[in-house]
Amino acid sequence: MSACPNTAVADPARCEPGGPSQPLPVLGREVTVPLVTGGEVAYAALDYAASAPALQRVWDDVAAYAPYYGSVHRGAGYLSQLSTDLFENSRAAVAEFLGCRPDDQVVFTRSTTDSLNLLAAALPGGCEVFVFETEHHASLLPWRTARVTYLDAPQTPGQAVAALEGALADRHDPYGPALVCVTGASNVTGEIWPVRELAAAAHAHGARIVLDAAQLAPHHPVDIAELDVDWVAFSGHKLYAPFGAGVLAGRADWLREAEPYLAGGGASRTVARRADGGVDVEWHDTAARHEAGSPNVIGAYAIASACRALAGFGFDALVAREQRLVDTVRAGLAEVPGVRVLSLFGDDSPRVGVISFVVDGWNSSHFAAALSAEYGIGVRDGLFCAHPLVRALLGGDPEQSAGCGAPEALNAIRVSFGAGTPDEHVERFVRAVRELVRDGARWLYRTEAGRCVPA
Amino acid sequence: MSACPNTAVADPARCEPGGPSQPLPVLGREVTVPLVTGGEVAYAALDYAASAPALQRVWDDVAAYAPYYGSVHRGAGYLSQLSTDLFENSRAAVAEFLGCRPDDQVVFTRSTTDSLNLLAAALPGGCEVFVFETEHHASLLPWRTARVTYLDAPQTPGQAVAALEGALADRHDPYGPALVCVTGASNVTGEIWPVRELAAAAHAHGARIVLDAAQLAPHHPVDIAELDVDWVAFSGHKLYAPFGAGVLAGRADWLREAEPYLAGGGASRTVARRADGGVDVEWHDTAARHEAGSPNVIGAYAIASACRALAGFGFDALVAREQRLVDTVRAGLAEVPGVRVLSLFGDDSPRVGVISFVVDGWNSSHFAAALSAEYGIGVRDGLFCAHPLVRALLGGDPEQSAGCGAPEALNAIRVSFGAGTPDEHVERFVRAVRELVRDGARWLYRTEAGRCVPA
Repeated sequence: MSACPNTAVADPARCEPGGPSQPLPVLGREVTVPLVTGGEVAYAALDYAASAPALQRVWDDVAAYAPYYGSVHRGAGYLSQLSTDLFENSRAAVAEFLGCRPDDQVVFTRSTTDSLNLLAAALPGGCEVFVFETEHHASLLPWRTARVTYLDAPQTPGQAVAALEGALADRHDPYGPALVCVTGASNVTGEIWPVRELAAAAHAHGARIVLDAAQLAPHHPVDIAELDVDWVAFSGHKLYAPFGAGVLAGRADWLREAEPYLAGGGASRTVARRADGGVDVEWHDTAARHEAGSPNVIGAYAIASACRALAGFGFDALVAREQRLVDTVRAGLAEVPGVRVLSLFGDDSPRVGVISFVVDGWNSSHFAAALSAEYGIGVRDGLFCAHPLVRALLGGDPEQSAGCGAPEALNAIRVSFGAGTPDEHVERFVRAVRELVRDGARWLYRTEAGRCVPA
Repeated sequence: MSACPNTAVADPARCEPGGPSQPLPVLGREVTVPLVTGGEVAYAALDYAASAPALQRVWDDVAAYAPYYGSVHRGAGYLSQLSTDLFENSRAAVAEFLGCRPDDQVVFTRSTTDSLNLLAAALPGGCEVFVFETEHHASLLPWRTARVTYLDAPQTPGQAVAALEGALADRHDPYGPALVCVTGASNVTGEIWPVRELAAAAHAHGARIVLDAAQLAPHHPVDIAELDVDWVAFSGHKLYAPFGAGVLAGRADWLREAEPYLAGGGASRTVARRADGGVDVEWHDTAARHEAGSPNVIGAYAIASACRALAGFGFDALVAREQRLVDTVRAGLAEVPGVRVLSLFGDDSPRVGVISFVVDGWNSSHFAAALSAEYGIGVRDGLFCAHPLVRALLGGDPEQSAGCGAPEALNAIRVSFGAGTPDEHVERFVRAVRELVRDGARWLYRTEAGRCVPA
């Protein structure tokens, strides 16, 4: 048992997808769940946009490494050296996955939310921030110390670019620092945003841009240099690597000049008492500056494993397969009377496997509960941590959305999927929507402790 | 495969320690590593104070749950509901492990460093902080917005209490908020600090106290109510649960009144555009306020599993067994000429399985490298993220510590162990120290990229 498990990582044979018509193997693919109507059914995990299952290969890599776990950056022993190499190699693998420029830094965080809060804490003084109201709260809210301009929901990608250009032209200090934060793919509509064009607009006005790739990276290639964005943030738990880690990658200068995100060991190079009784600290200026505390080596390695698996399989095939599933869902929903799919940019917009909708006469929580209870399908209902966007798409006041008693759809239902989703799951979902709308739910529901349960 | 894996957690039979003379089963116990002298040997992980191996039971629980992984707090599906229950049950298990009071909050963070940075961000305005210079950097440095009083290294526990009382009596604003941050057990000397007495002193002067239990909780029972501390922080990766999570537990009021630690989804209850174009946010006032982003459910569950395993086995037996290992190491080191064990409080102080020392005529990095290369023993050399303490203990200027060429010990060697350590590991360690001092290293070393490697 002395072999380093790291050597097995690059073996593409472990990916064995069986071609583009087959899903990649993920954990949980054999899990069955009970139905309220009796019996059990294979669980259809259609909430990838919140948390995707671990790729089998990611799990296998983590399991192979776990006995070799040791202190990173901190020990003289063999397993500490191995763990340190694994951690730093994981950083390099993420840089390769994102197509980072030579001077870019890759900082391991705990999630996209954490990544964007880190960047927010690293903004230069006086920085102005521009963000569309259509963003996830993780992109909308972290900029607490900045002057923030919230841009209205655009109706086309071109309108988004024009709105950003207009706002940047009107900025408070045209020569001061400015940052644009934009999603790569909406966590509500799945629609892909014109990142390259927005980046060009930002740079033309002397601003920088950070890409929230939480919903894009699991579905599409993200090349930081080719998109010409300054930073990219994404989460392991949406990229089939749910072990508590995320990534912020990009320009080093703001990060190097900022106060350390967390103060503690690992980030500090030297600490010494001063003659006056105080303490002097010299901080690192590498990624370690913002990674105080013992690194989450398992989380970082899991992300690296997922990056290698996706890149090894190839995004061309992944995108083609997922697009087929998107088409199945959209075509299916289009045939069901009273179903309205939410969209900013219209039918022709490219999108990933994230689709939100409402059903006339149905409360969305009730509908989602029925999908779970009667069909073993896990979706999400609610406002998806993007309240202003859902409000803009739905009209009305989604805050009034209550339990399952409400007759109207004041929130929405989201179905989302990805590389591990079998065709059967989306086919079952389409059939379930059709049957529920046609026949109604077979069980009545009541609200108990905020959840829908069978009456 | 539809059974909830959670039901298996409470089964004490899975702990099977075989009585207090046997270590608890941990991952990596069968790993062998190559020796520079030829052949292989079972790896002796003696760097628990940095990162401890996962308990086998923790790994088994994580592996049983992993196929059921789903979105926490975010989904309508069966696995999302199960994962949400698991996450919140993990919170309850940690509260029980720590003996939390009814109104205490348990916040899942990523580490002790993160926990203390969270508390630092939640200090009320004008808060004064009191901290001994002997603390780990994670306890020493996070208080960046506060007026900090650094207390000199005490020579006895009584001196520590007296010094704190004196400092609190002299504080700038005797009626303003104040916080004391103190370690439960030193990450350098392993010595246990008089936490209960320090808490009483803090409270007598109207101050609060947070216990850095990173090095105490894995070795000793920590009861927040019985110690009468206001908060406790610890890390999963030192508590046999290395999945990127940590804990801050304690009083809710400062946490509830503070700005959210991270801004994003999960922490925000409602978000709405204002008529003037801005954004209004209403934040949660539960633990979720400081847990924005998707929770690390695997990390939290791993910690809960470790808490249950340790409590289920019983700390009486764990402490007794570890004390025997401490005695073995201390007695062994005492017999080797030129070995000096570092201590603040002297021989009679109670301590956990963390012991640092220097060897006359040896560079500590060289010594640690030889322990690894010739004996397969993983220790740590350096300043242990506690520079002022190690400087106070060593005298001289540890900053001058360079590679393995330096003839003198300008940093130190730390050996640390715990519930998973077999007797053979510490016996081998004692023998190795004796032989290295007596016979010298069999291989010469040179520095390459900052590490000692065979010449």
